[in-house]
Parts: sequence; C-alpha cells; structure tokens
Amino acid sequence: MAERPRRKQLADQVAETLQERVLNGEWKPGEKLPTEFDLIEDLNVGRGTVREAVKILVTRNVLEIRRGNGTYVVENPGQVEDPFGFAFYGDKWKLAEDLCEVRLLLEPDIAALAAQRAAPEEIAYILECCDAVEEQIHSGQSHSETDRAFHGAIAAASHNHVLSSMAPVIQQGVSAFIEVTNSSLTQMTILTHRKVADAIARHDPEAASAAMREHLEHNRDHIQNVDGRGKQ
Amino acid sequence: MAERPRRKQLADQVAETLQERVLNGEWKPGEKLPTEFDLIEDLNVGRGTVREAVKILVTRNVLEIRRGNGTYVVENPGQVEDPFGFAFYGDKWKLAEDLCEVRLLLEPDIAALAAQRAAPEEIAYILECCDAVEEQIHSGQSHSETDRAFHGAIAAASHNHVLSSMAPVIQQGVSAFIEVTNSSLTQMTILTHRKVADAIARHDPEAASAAMREHLEHNRDHIQNVDGRGKQ
Repeated sequence: MAERPRRKQLADQVAETLQERVLNGEWKPGEKLPTEFDLIEDLNVGRGTVREAVKILVTRNVLEIRRGNGTYVVENPGQVEDPFGFAFYGDKWKLAEDLCEVRLLLEPDIAALAAQRAAPEEIAYILECCDAVEEQIHSGQSHSETDRAFHGAIAAASHNHVLSSMAPVIQQGVSAFIEVTNSSLTQMTILTHRKVADAIARHDPEAASAAMREHLEHNRDHIQNVDGRGKQ
Repeated sequence: MAERPRRKQLADQVAETLQERVLNGEWKPGEKLPTEFDLIEDLNVGRGTVREAVKILVTRNVLEIRRGNGTYVVENPGQVEDPFGFAFYGDKWKLAEDLCEVRLLLEPDIAALAAQRAAPEEIAYILECCDAVEEQIHSGQSHSETDRAFHGAIAAASHNHVLSSMAPVIQQGVSAFIEVTNSSLTQMTILTHRKVADAIARHDPEAASAAMREHLEHNRDHIQNVDGRGKQ
C-alpha cells in the first residue's frame, strides 16, 4: 500500500482531539459543535483537515452532520447499529435461535428490575406502548416498531445503561422469523404484554418476570414452528 | 460540505460488492482476498478505487491489511471493540455497577449452558485457563488476560454465538475498578473459578451457575467497597 499522506495523519490527530472533548464531557450528546471557521482557528489547522477529522468521527458514530445546520455530537456516541456483526453470521436460523435464548435469559430479569425501579412517567410510557400495540393489532397495522418501543421502554426503566444499550440489539433480527400476522400469536402478544405492563405498574418483580418469560416462550415456540417448516 | 468526488461514490459501491462476498460466504472469516491486481481486473475499476474500498471495509472491521502479506477477512467481521460506546459514558462508577449487574444476570446462566453443552476439548481448555490463572496469582503475575480467557472459554462452550459475542463486552471495564492484588480477592478467585470449572467438567448446570454467582457477587462486593472509598 502507498504511504499515508501527511494530511491524513494530521486529520487522525485532530479527530482524537475532538473525540477527547466528547469523552471528557466538554461536548455533550446532542450538542452542536462550534462552526468550521471556529474549529480552524481553535485547532490551528486547515479546513480540509477539520473536514477530514469530522468525517472520521462520523464513521465512528461520534458526530453527525446535519445538512445546512451544522455538526452535532450524536445522542449515543460510539454505539453502532449491528455491534456484533450479526449480518455476517452464516446460519440465520441458528442466529434467531441464539437470540431467542438470550432474550429468555435476560428479558424476564429486565422486566423484574423495571418493576422495582420504574418511575411513574416510565410506567405511563410502558402502558402507552402496550395500548398502541393492541390498537395496531386490532386495526391490522404492523406493530413491530411499537413492539420494539414497548420492550425498549421496559429496558430503559431497568435504570441500567448497559441493559438498555443491549436490549435493542438482542431484540432485533427475531422478527424476520415470526409470521406476525398469525392470529393466535397476536392474541397471545396482547395478553402477555398486558400482564407484563400491569406487573411493572404495580411494582411486582416476580409477576413481571413470569409474564415476560411466558411472552417470549410463546414467541420462541412460534419461531421453532416456522423453522420446522422453513427447513422442509 | 463539498460535493463528494465521483471516485468516492464508486469506492462505496465497490466496498458494498466486496462486503456482499463476505456476507454470502464466498469469502470466509480469516480467508485471504485475491491480489489487488486480480480485484482490479475482476471489478473493472482503478487501483485507487480498490484501495479506497478496502480502506472502507477496514474501518467497518470486515477486512484487515497485513503488511507485506495481503488483505484478509477478519475473524469476526463487523464486530467492534467497544460496540456500545462505554468509553463515552460520563459516570464510570455507574457503568461499573451496571456491568456487574449484567454479568450477574447473564454469567451464571452462561455457566449452566456450558455445563450442559461443553465438548471434551472445551472442558479441557476451561480447566487449562483455570490452572493458568491460579499459577499467575501464586507467582504474583497479572492474571487479568487469562481471567478473560477463562470467562470467554465458558461463554464459547455455551454454543450460543450471541452470548459468546456479548461476553467480552460485558466482561470488559470492570477490572479497572478492582484492586486485583488484594489477597482475599485472589484467594476467592482461585476457589470460585475452580468450583465453576469443576461443575462444568462434570456437566452439573446448577452447581456451575451457583459457583459463578458466588464468584461474581464476591467481585461486585469488592467493587462496591473500593467505590465507597473512591467517592470519599
């Protein structure tokens, strides 16, 4: 490979400097960066170097460029969409099974923590998502996005940042294997979601955990069912 | 921002083409790519475009360039070191507490799965790591890397790809908060590691889970202890 040009090395250094400001809290998530002109003055480098450095941090999911508006720190710096490279897994059925197993290990515990820790406004939001999923199922609309919001709201109410970061990752991917229009599944979803939400609302960790387990076991059984047919 | 040059767009397209070959299994993890010359011929693009495309996939943790050797598919395509951006979390003590909580939720279950599923050679490797940690503690060497290998070997023996991808992520970070030279902690590590390894070796899920819980609770208590002092 060719030698790296000097500007590239300088851009890497400037990227580190800018990232350091996010790491040490000088620039907070969601905050707007100074203008390009101010950064050029401040860092004493050229416009091309500043742009290159910003691009590096966009690739790392630290900054985002909003067209015609400026450069911002993203809401969750450093988080990537598919952090474990699930897209590269060869056997998608095995991946779906593994994800189901992990959800069954984690989500009942997450529901129990939410029942212990949820604030009133978090409970209100969980119940709101629960209502919305039910309405969408009754009106024949897709409820997959609201379903993710429901499970995400429960994870957020666990007040554990690691769990709420991990939850969307383990919740993804399984939906592709569930025939969501199946009416026995949707009826069971309405019933078990409601049980989970009510148990969290009355701060009953054991009931929340048991209801979440029931919900996920039903989902898993349905996937295995589709799986059996899918594999011939 | 300036218009993106045309070569950049072409390089993005070529990167997608190359990534597709990894996604569909044409190029496997650890495999060497064709030479730059062959890729130029094959894709009918210039050398600069191929190099740019390879660089894009290096940034995405799909390919790696081994100097003077060639370009390879990485062992775990798409996986990143700090996928949830823990480095950007403002409160490191809260992060350590959260990570401890998640380890306590997951690792006893992972140990139980390993006890059910571990193959003989996996059990042999777990015992080997256990011996190595003990020797390093006795000889006063750092055992943190071998400790990670021990916990990683157990996660691998769960035969769940999602768990073995997640394990190193939740295992990281806590060590910074443990005073590893503390002798009561190291004695307890030797004892509880051995209990975990032996329970897995005799395929006893309940004992493996209980021993792992004991091990992690002891670690957590030690962190909370340091925490109390650290915060003044």
